[in-house]
Amino acid sequence: MNYRMIGQMLGRVLCMEAVLMLVPLFIALGYHESVVPFLISVVITGVVGFCLSRLQPKHSDFYAREGFVIVVMCWVVLSLLGTLPFVISGEIPRFIDALFETVSGFSTCGASILTDIEALSYSCLFWRSFTHWIGGMGVLVFIMAVMPMAGEYNMHIMRAEATGPVVGKLVPRVRKTAVILYLMYVILTLIETILLVLGPMNWFDAVLHAFSTAGTGGFSTRAASVGAFGSTYVDLVISIFMLLFGINFNLYFFLLIGKFKSFWKSEELRWYLGAIAFATITISLAIRTSYTIFGSALRDAFFQVLSIISTTGFATADFNQWPQYARWLLVLLMFSGACAGSTGGGMKVSRILILAKAAKAELRRLLHPRSVNLVQMDHKRVDESTVRCTLVFLVLYMGILLLGTLIVSLDGFDLETNFTAVLASLSSIGPGLSLVGATGNYAMFSWLSKLVLACCMLIGRLEIFPVMMFCAPRTWKRV
Amino acid sequence: MNYRMIGQMLGRVLCMEAVLMLVPLFIALGYHESVVPFLISVVITGVVGFCLSRLQPKHSDFYAREGFVIVVMCWVVLSLLGTLPFVISGEIPRFIDALFETVSGFSTCGASILTDIEALSYSCLFWRSFTHWIGGMGVLVFIMAVMPMAGEYNMHIMRAEATGPVVGKLVPRVRKTAVILYLMYVILTLIETILLVLGPMNWFDAVLHAFSTAGTGGFSTRAASVGAFGSTYVDLVISIFMLLFGINFNLYFFLLIGKFKSFWKSEELRWYLGAIAFATITISLAIRTSYTIFGSALRDAFFQVLSIISTTGFATADFNQWPQYARWLLVLLMFSGACAGSTGGGMKVSRILILAKAAKAELRRLLHPRSVNLVQMDHKRVDESTVRCTLVFLVLYMGILLLGTLIVSLDGFDLETNFTAVLASLSSIGPGLSLVGATGNYAMFSWLSKLVLACCMLIGRLEIFPVMMFCAPRTWKRV
Repeated sequence: MNYRMIGQMLGRVLCMEAVLMLVPLFIALGYHESVVPFLISVVITGVVGFCLSRLQPKHSDFYAREGFVIVVMCWVVLSLLGTLPFVISGEIPRFIDALFETVSGFSTCGASILTDIEALSYSCLFWRSFTHWIGGMGVLVFIMAVMPMAGEYNMHIMRAEATGPVVGKLVPRVRKTAVILYLMYVILTLIETILLVLGPMNWFDAVLHAFSTAGTGGFSTRAASVGAFGSTYVDLVISIFMLLFGINFNLYFFLLIGKFKSFWKSEELRWYLGAIAFATITISLAIRTSYTIFGSALRDAFFQVLSIISTTGFATADFNQWPQYARWLLVLLMFSGACAGSTGGGMKVSRILILAKAAKAELRRLLHPRSVNLVQMDHKRVDESTVRCTLVFLVLYMGILLLGTLIVSLDGFDLETNFTAVLASLSSIGPGLSLVGATGNYAMFSWLSKLVLACCMLIGRLEIFPVMMFCAPRTWKRV
Repeated sequence: MNYRMIGQMLGRVLCMEAVLMLVPLFIALGYHESVVPFLISVVITGVVGFCLSRLQPKHSDFYAREGFVIVVMCWVVLSLLGTLPFVISGEIPRFIDALFETVSGFSTCGASILTDIEALSYSCLFWRSFTHWIGGMGVLVFIMAVMPMAGEYNMHIMRAEATGPVVGKLVPRVRKTAVILYLMYVILTLIETILLVLGPMNWFDAVLHAFSTAGTGGFSTRAASVGAFGSTYVDLVISIFMLLFGINFNLYFFLLIGKFKSFWKSEELRWYLGAIAFATITISLAIRTSYTIFGSALRDAFFQVLSIISTTGFATADFNQWPQYARWLLVLLMFSGACAGSTGGGMKVSRILILAKAAKAELRRLLHPRSVNLVQMDHKRVDESTVRCTLVFLVLYMGILLLGTLIVSLDGFDLETNFTAVLASLSSIGPGLSLVGATGNYAMFSWLSKLVLACCMLIGRLEIFPVMMFCAPRTWKRV
């Protein structure tokens, strides 16, 4: 293991975090709040980061395992030091709570232990939503975009941090790919902010909600989430941007370079939109009796379906009170999640497609054992190894979900709470059902459950394999 | 498709069913109940069966697809005509209820729509539990065991009806294998009956509970299930036989021919016993506060763990009221089920092992892409195709579970009820949690939900693939 290189990379990530913490520091200045918590946080993070980044690697050996280890350690360290502002300011006094909130932020989960969100200072609220935005596109992708690095090991890192079963480069150079991705991310966030400001939101709320939407996180500045603004305009803008941030960013690149056909031919996109349409219509029908106008039911259903499938987790209605059909359909959307290569979590639509196609191919094989049965996506053959990897992904996903629920159930809350809490953490949704529903939060869990849930968030954000590799003793053996 | 041969086989199965219906007919005679319902049922089933069995196949072409179709159709037809005694006697007046109960019987699920079991006549109670025994080892295996047939297509049928990822022959001839399996089945059932009669049970209860245990079904003669007898001896005998019937019958064959080492070396057996031990101990600890003596907690935990993991579904305690940890652990056991090649349902311990090993192999592959990573069981290599098939099994299992729950949730019962009802049907358990818990039943569901649940039972009993093949348009195409 190339420890020095890992240390150097960790140092760079922490330096970046220190710089990013300066933004809420200025927010604190602007709103005449105490700057001390952020000042101390910046200094600690910066010093640790600077020391680590001074490490000089003795050699440049860098393999897949270094990639996995770097990614996992970066996210852990980032979260650990990201708790500083909350703990120092005393706004989230218990460390485990602060850790839960920060991991939930960076992993873009959006689950919260806060019972009174409006009591937070502007600077802490900003930092909270900012972590979504930082985590959304990936911290290491960001580092790659802004820092000149020996290009060799970029791909290993990108593969470990990006979402979806297959990771491709948009352009031959990894660094340039990262820059393009981040540019699109920034531009979309800016457009959303401007559109929200044009409505009834002030700048602060607009920016923070745009951060949360962009990262498909779900932290809001209000306890009642987006519902607090009670504006159809806001609902619609955020709905549409949740839809957009749930789409593979590679497809936007196709649009940019004029390949419109490639955009619309994407099977994943069609299924994503189809699932949204199906869920919105059937849920509107299921909940219509609680509304005086069908349009309102449609609006709430559309918002909630997008909030869940994009794994954002905003709420405009208490979907926990909806009919059982609607509730379970939302649980199914929690499993699925958004498109690969988006900022969303979950298993990803493309994985579900590959799983379904693999099943179909297997059935064909049973019928005609000697026939050739390939899995195809977008008229291209999917590698045997990608199919196998996707199948194993399901095994690990289900295993973690079922065993995670077992540990959380030690707290004694009801089955629905436990199961959807773990599912919502693993799929980066945020709210689940029952006690962790749209009007609930995660405050009541024990420290063990909070730790398990935070781990699930990280596992889900990094799509399982890097964390599994990190925990495998074999990874740490000398070659 | 060789329709005539399929028809002939269906005819034989129905003739067998007519003969088997004579047993409850004699029970009715013995208990001075009306013999009319069974007489009419025997005549209808016999006549339909006789006519169909007269069909002469024009050719002997028989491929995998004929095997799948025969198995599914046999089970459907068997269930349809098996409802006759219940409907004609008026003891279960609604057809959908009778169908649910009969499918639940043959598939050894054990879920019931009966609200007052004690009100049933002796003959109907007998037929109800007898269906478990008939379904347990497989109806077609039975036909193979007793009727001389052109041996060519036996293996296709056996493969489609037997449980577990791999089906092997004990001896070179399929027919002889079937005879050996059924002999062991009969002997074990006999021993259990005798042991139960030695306790506080009468002959009738003893025979019926032995049938239910042998088929890992779960129908009891009492509404309070085995708990009604309130006898530690009965609990223990039934616990041990649930454990025995959950073990691969091939292993008993090893014992018979003196291969004791092969018996104990079975990885599946070790994990099965390990899971039972772990679940029993931790559940006893979780429920200990509700008992005055720890021994009673241990007894109830042991019984319930075996009842669920063997997919029988008897109850001696209302496990629905147990702490959340115990409840969720039982749900996990519902997923797992018993060993392959047993009469139990669920995914089977060996499939879970193959899934875990496939995941491990994939992680090794990520670390060292060029290394050879084989999946091994009992020190033998597991075929690439078996691994793939097992992975796809998980995909289909989860898909059916999640989508089945969506349809059932249209009825509006709580999430826990819906989810565990479908899971308990798919894994042939019987009782689930909440409304379908140990003291509940399935009476309140709509006809649609009952149909979906009955389908899940058949799909689960036949281990998904045959039913999927039956539904695939490709199967029915002319070659």
